[in-house]
Amino acid sequence: MFRQRMNADEAKELFLNAFAPLSDTEKLPIEDCDCRIIAENITAGMDVPHYRRAAMDGFAVRAGDTLGAGANSPVILKLAQSIENGTCVRVHTGSPIPEGADAVVMLEDADLRDDKVEIFSQLHPGKNVGETGEDIRKGEVILKEGHRLRPCDIAVLAALGIRDIPVFRKPLVVVIPTGEELVSRDNPVLGEGEVYETNGLMAALYIRKWGGASRLLDIVKDDPEKIKDAIFSNLDADMIITSGGTSVGKRDYVPGVIGSLGDLLIHGVGISPGKPTALGIINGKPVVCMPGYPVAGIMALFFFAKAALRKLGHIQDEEDRKVRAVLSGKIPGRTGYKTFARVKLEKCEAIPLATSGAGILSSVSKADGFVIIPENVEGYDKGEEVEVVLIE
Amino acid sequence: MFRQRMNADEAKELFLNAFAPLSDTEKLPIEDCDCRIIAENITAGMDVPHYRRAAMDGFAVRAGDTLGAGANSPVILKLAQSIENGTCVRVHTGSPIPEGADAVVMLEDADLRDDKVEIFSQLHPGKNVGETGEDIRKGEVILKEGHRLRPCDIAVLAALGIRDIPVFRKPLVVVIPTGEELVSRDNPVLGEGEVYETNGLMAALYIRKWGGASRLLDIVKDDPEKIKDAIFSNLDADMIITSGGTSVGKRDYVPGVIGSLGDLLIHGVGISPGKPTALGIINGKPVVCMPGYPVAGIMALFFFAKAALRKLGHIQDEEDRKVRAVLSGKIPGRTGYKTFARVKLEKCEAIPLATSGAGILSSVSKADGFVIIPENVEGYDKGEEVEVVLIE
Repeated sequence: MFRQRMNADEAKELFLNAFAPLSDTEKLPIEDCDCRIIAENITAGMDVPHYRRAAMDGFAVRAGDTLGAGANSPVILKLAQSIENGTCVRVHTGSPIPEGADAVVMLEDADLRDDKVEIFSQLHPGKNVGETGEDIRKGEVILKEGHRLRPCDIAVLAALGIRDIPVFRKPLVVVIPTGEELVSRDNPVLGEGEVYETNGLMAALYIRKWGGASRLLDIVKDDPEKIKDAIFSNLDADMIITSGGTSVGKRDYVPGVIGSLGDLLIHGVGISPGKPTALGIINGKPVVCMPGYPVAGIMALFFFAKAALRKLGHIQDEEDRKVRAVLSGKIPGRTGYKTFARVKLEKCEAIPLATSGAGILSSVSKADGFVIIPENVEGYDKGEEVEVVLIE
Repeated sequence: MFRQRMNADEAKELFLNAFAPLSDTEKLPIEDCDCRIIAENITAGMDVPHYRRAAMDGFAVRAGDTLGAGANSPVILKLAQSIENGTCVRVHTGSPIPEGADAVVMLEDADLRDDKVEIFSQLHPGKNVGETGEDIRKGEVILKEGHRLRPCDIAVLAALGIRDIPVFRKPLVVVIPTGEELVSRDNPVLGEGEVYETNGLMAALYIRKWGGASRLLDIVKDDPEKIKDAIFSNLDADMIITSGGTSVGKRDYVPGVIGSLGDLLIHGVGISPGKPTALGIINGKPVVCMPGYPVAGIMALFFFAKAALRKLGHIQDEEDRKVRAVLSGKIPGRTGYKTFARVKLEKCEAIPLATSGAGILSSVSKADGFVIIPENVEGYDKGEEVEVVLIE
C-alpha cells in the first residue's frame, strides 16, 4: 500500500525544501551562454559609448554657431578638420564628435558647396550627440546574478568587450529506466510481453530542454540489487530520475531502494495521472521516481522533476507556456487529485482528449497541452474558458 | 533617400512571398530530433501494445468465472499457468494476458491462499485488459509532416521501435556584420570611434535559438566590393543577414550591393525602431539587412528575419511568448509606423522603458518584452491592458 497519499502542492513544497541549489559555477565564452544562468552580478568595466558620438550623419558644430539659422536664412560654416570659430566637421553616425563641438547638423538640414556648409536649422547643445556612457555607465550593474541570458543580453556583454562570464553549472541528471518488460530499440523485433523503453528517453530529452544535462542509463531489470547498483554508481549526478517500479505490486522495488539508500519522502501523490510517484533524497540529491505508465510518468516529470531541476540550476523565471481557450466538451476532475486533462487546440477551442488510460502514450503526443483541474473542483464544463499549459 | 517607406505588414508579405521553403531533408536518430520538423507523415508499423496486456497487477480470469462474486461471497479459482475451467493466472501490469482470459482481477479484490485464489468482485469482459493496439494502431498516421517534435512525440516514435526519421534540414544563415567603426572582441582596448561588434553575434545566436544554423563572419569594412565578396562567397547559405550600412549616408553601401547582386525588394519600412531595414533576394535566397543601430537591428531581426527563417525551415507553430499586463505609464506610437515599445514586467505591470534612442542596446537587455503599437494608434495610456511579447 502507499503511504498516505499526499496533496500535490504540499508534496512539491516538502520535496523542494529538502535540497539546495547547486553552487558550482563555470566560466564560459559569452557566445555559448544563451539560456545559461549568470552566477554573479556583472558590472560594466567601461562606458558605452566610451566617447561622445554622432547620432546622425552630418556636420559637427558648436550649437552657438547656428544661432538664427532657418530654412530661408542659412548660417554658413567652413568645413574643416577641427572645430574653430565658424568651422564644422563632417561626421558619420557613430563617429567621435570633435572637441569643441556640441551638436550635429543632419545632412538633410545642410548643404555642402565646395568647402562651405549652409546650415538651415538652429540647434540646441547636445542635439544629435550621444554622450559618453549614454547606453551603459562604467560601474553600473548591467546583469544580475540569477538572470537567464538571452542573445540581447549577450550583445550587451559583447559591447563591453567581455569575453567570458561565470554561469551556474548545468545540473547533471541521471535517468534510470527500470522494468522487466522493457527492451532497447536496438532489438528490431519485440516478443510478447516486451515493450520498447520510452520513458527514460523522454525524461532525458525534457531535462535537456529545460536546461539540464542528462545521462540515460541502460534498462535495469526489476531487481532491487541492480537498481541499487545503478543509483550507487551514478551518485556523481546532481539529481536522479527513475522510471517504473513505483507502484505497490510484487515487482515494485524502487521506492524501497530509495528508502534504503536515503530518505523516501513521499510515495503516492494527489496528481492524476501520476499517483504512484515517489520522491526522495539520497546524499542530499533529489530523486524523482516516475511511474512506469507513460502518461503518469510524464506528469511526474512535468510537476516534480522540472521544478527540482529549476531549483538546482537557479532557473527562476516562469517557463510554462500557457494559452486561454474555450472547452469544446466537459472534463471531469478527480476529488483530492490535481488532474491533468490533455486537450488538443484548434483555433481558440480546447478539445478534450480521452483522459482515461495513463498507459496511452499517444494521447500525450496528440495533445497540445493540458488543463489542470484543482483538487476541490469537480471538473470544467463545455464552454468554460480555461488555461491550457502547452506541452513543450 | 529611402525608396518610399513600406508598411510593415505589406513588406513582410512581399518579402515572404519572394522565396520558397527548403525542400532538403535529412535522416536523424530520434534522440537528436527535439524541436526538429518532421519531413513526412509517420505511420505506425506495429500495434502498441502488440499483445493484450494486463492494466493492473492481479489475476487473469475468464470474466464468466467470476459471476456472482462479491465481498462476502468470493468465487474460488485455482492458480495455474494457463486458463482452463476454473483457473486463473498471476499477471503484472503490462504482462500478456494468457489465452482464454478476458479480464484481470486487481490484487486488492483477491486473496491468495496456497494455490487457491478467492475473488471478491464480479468482472465484465475486458476489465483491466489493454487490448492490442489500444494505444497506437498499425497503419495509423501518428505524426504529420510539418509537426515540430517534442520529447513526448519522440517517445511515441520509440514505442514503435523507430530509430531514425526524416526531418527538414536546418536553414543555414550567414551573418555579415559591416561597419568601419566595428572591432572584434579580440581587441582588448578600443580606440576613439571604435565599438565592439554586437549585432552580428546577437543575430547568430537568435538564429540558433529559432531553429536555424548560423555562420558568423568576420567584420567587413564599409566597402561595397568587400561586402559583395562576403555575400558572394557565402551563397551556399540559405539566408543572408547583414548588419549595418543600411541607411542613406555616404557609407551606407549595403542596399546598393543587394540590388547589384539580386533584387532589393524593400528599403525603408514602417517599423520603429528599424526604419532603415532593407530586404531583398539573391539567388532565390532571402536577405535581411539589419540597421546598425542595435535596437533597430533587433526589431528587423524579430520582425523579418525570424519569419523568414521559419518559412525556410517549415516551422509553423506560433512561437512568440506573450503575456498580458497593465501599463504603468503612457507609451506613444508613431503614426505610420508599427512601434515596438520596450517594457519591463513587474508582477502584472508593464513599465515602459525609454523608447527613444535606437542606439541604446542596454534598453533591450533591461526589457522583458515589447508592446506593439499599430500604425494607426496614437499610443497606449497608463492603466491600459496590453499584450507584451516577451523577448526571448
